[in-house]
Amino acid sequence: MRLKNNVHSVTVFAPATVTNVSCGFDIMGFALFQPGDEVRLTITDRQGVTITSIEGGNGKIPLVAEQNTAGKALLSMLQALDLPFGVEVEIFKKMAIGTGLGSSAASAVAAVWALNQFLEEPLNKEELLPFAMEGEKLTSGQQAHADNVAACLFGGFVVIRSLQPLEVIALDYPSELHCAIVHPQLELKTSDMRRILRQQIQLKDAIEQWGNIAGLVIGLQKGDFELISRSLKDVIVEPVRGKVIPGYQQARQAALEAGALGSGISGSGPSLFALTTSAEAAQQCAQAMAQFYLQLNLQCDTYLSPINPHGPQIVQIED
Amino acid sequence: MRLKNNVHSVTVFAPATVTNVSCGFDIMGFALFQPGDEVRLTITDRQGVTITSIEGGNGKIPLVAEQNTAGKALLSMLQALDLPFGVEVEIFKKMAIGTGLGSSAASAVAAVWALNQFLEEPLNKEELLPFAMEGEKLTSGQQAHADNVAACLFGGFVVIRSLQPLEVIALDYPSELHCAIVHPQLELKTSDMRRILRQQIQLKDAIEQWGNIAGLVIGLQKGDFELISRSLKDVIVEPVRGKVIPGYQQARQAALEAGALGSGISGSGPSLFALTTSAEAAQQCAQAMAQFYLQLNLQCDTYLSPINPHGPQIVQIED
Repeated sequence: MRLKNNVHSVTVFAPATVTNVSCGFDIMGFALFQPGDEVRLTITDRQGVTITSIEGGNGKIPLVAEQNTAGKALLSMLQALDLPFGVEVEIFKKMAIGTGLGSSAASAVAAVWALNQFLEEPLNKEELLPFAMEGEKLTSGQQAHADNVAACLFGGFVVIRSLQPLEVIALDYPSELHCAIVHPQLELKTSDMRRILRQQIQLKDAIEQWGNIAGLVIGLQKGDFELISRSLKDVIVEPVRGKVIPGYQQARQAALEAGALGSGISGSGPSLFALTTSAEAAQQCAQAMAQFYLQLNLQCDTYLSPINPHGPQIVQIED
Repeated sequence: MRLKNNVHSVTVFAPATVTNVSCGFDIMGFALFQPGDEVRLTITDRQGVTITSIEGGNGKIPLVAEQNTAGKALLSMLQALDLPFGVEVEIFKKMAIGTGLGSSAASAVAAVWALNQFLEEPLNKEELLPFAMEGEKLTSGQQAHADNVAACLFGGFVVIRSLQPLEVIALDYPSELHCAIVHPQLELKTSDMRRILRQQIQLKDAIEQWGNIAGLVIGLQKGDFELISRSLKDVIVEPVRGKVIPGYQQARQAALEAGALGSGISGSGPSLFALTTSAEAAQQCAQAMAQFYLQLNLQCDTYLSPINPHGPQIVQIED
C-alpha cells in the first residue's frame, strides 16, 4: 500500500445522519449537510494512533485511541492495510453527543475518509465501511447497527439490506426533500433506548411495518411524496421510545400540522426529524417543534438541511 | 348505474397468484398466466345471484351464493351499486383448490370483472377490489389478507401497503422474470397453515426481514436480478410452514441449484414457486422440483409462466 508523497495532513468533515426514518428501524438512514464532525489527521513516523486534541464533546470523549470511535476505526484500518506509518488525530466535535444524530459515526467516518486520502490507491466506500463500523462497535457493541455509519459514508438515503454480510443499497430519492431537526436538550443513553425495546413483537405489527417499508422505498424511488407521507409510520419502536422523550407526540404533531410529510425520532433520540418537500416547509416545521419545546422549558438546537448526497468531504489537504 | 344494452352474458378468466414471495408475508404477490378460473355471468330479471353450475373443485365448492367466494363478491357488488337485475353464474374451476395459488381469489376476481362488463360506466380496479375482498373473507375471515385478490385483479407485481385503509401499489419489475410452480398433491388447509404461525416474533428477525423487503422492492424496481436473488429470503414464516410441507427444503434447494433467483412457498402452500430470468430456466427449475417430489412418490402439477401484467381477461361477450 503506497502513500502519496505530498500529503502531510488532511482535514475531513463528515455529516450527521438521521436513521430509522420511522418505519425503517436499523435498516434506513440519510445524511444531512449539517451538523457534523471534523477530523484532522497528520502523518507521523511513530506507528499507531495518537489523539492529540478533542474540541467539543464536553470532555466526555476518551483520548485513548482504542476507546475512541475515530481512533478505533483508524487503528483497524492501519492494521488491516499494514500501513507503515502512524497518525496524529485532532477531533473537532461540531455536534453534541447523545443526540440521535450519529455523532460517533460522523467521527469514525471522517477519520477513515481522511486516512484514505494519504493512500496512492484509495479504497472505495464499500471497502472503508468495515473500518468505520469498528469505531461504531465501541458505542453499540458487536451487534452494532450500520445505519448511521453507512448513511454518513455513502451520503444520500441508504438501506442496510443485510448486516452479515454487510450490504448497503443507495436509494434514489427526490431532490426536493428537506429535513428539519430539533434536538431538545435532554440526556438519553443509546444503550438505555435500546434496552427499553421489546425483543418480541407482534407478527401483525411486523406486517404493518413491512408494508410501510415497501411503501417508503417505492415512494422515494418514484418521488411520490404522498406515498412517502403515508408510509412514514412506525408501529413498533416509536410507540415505546416516544414515551420516554418528553413531549414527543405533541412535537411530532406540531411538525405534521406545519406541513411535514412525516416526522419521527432520529436514531434513538431525543432529536426529532421532519421531512418536507422544500426548505421553507422545513423551516416552518423546525419552528413549530421548537416552539412546542420552549413551552416545556426545554431549550433546543434546530438544523435545516436537504439530503446530503456526498457523505464525507475534504476540508483541507496540507503538504 | 346504467347497463349496456347489448350484453347478455360475459365470460372472464382470472389468474392464479403467488403471494408472500418469501420475505413479503401478507404484503406481496404477483399474477401468473396459468392456471386460473373462468366465470360466466348471464343477466336475468330475477334479483340476486344464482349459481347454476360449478365445473371442477371436486364437489367441495358451495353452490349457495352467500357461501361461495364468487357469489359473495357478486352479491356485495350488486347490493352496493343497487343494480336492478340479477345474475346466473357458471364457475369453471380450472385450478385445484387449497394449492396456495389463490384459487378463491381468482373466482372472486373473475366474477366482479365479469359483472363490471355489464355496466355502462364500469368501475376501476380500486373500486372493484373491496367487492372481490368480500369473497376472500369467506375463506380467511374478516382479517382476510388482500395479497391474492390484489395481485389477481391488478396483475403484475403488487405490494399491499396498508389493509386499513386498503392501499395497493403496483411495482415495476423486469419483464424477463418467469415463474415455475410445482404443486405437490397434498392437502393443507389455509386456516391450519395460519394457525401454526407464531403470533409473536423476534425483533431481530423482523429487522432481517424488512431489510430483505426493501431489497426485493428495490431489486424489482431497478431490474437488479442479483439483488432480487439475495433478498428472496424469509426468516419468519417459511421456517415454520416449511416443516409441515414434506420435502420442502430439498425441493427448494433443487430449484436454486437449477438456477432459480429464489424459491419459496406460494401463499400458504403446498405449492412452491421459483423465480427465474428466462422461460428455459423456469422449465429447468420445475423439472428439478418435480423430480424431487417423484422420489417422495408425490405426484405434482407444474406450471410455467411469465409475470402476467393484465389480471383478469374477457374470454367472451355474448349479445
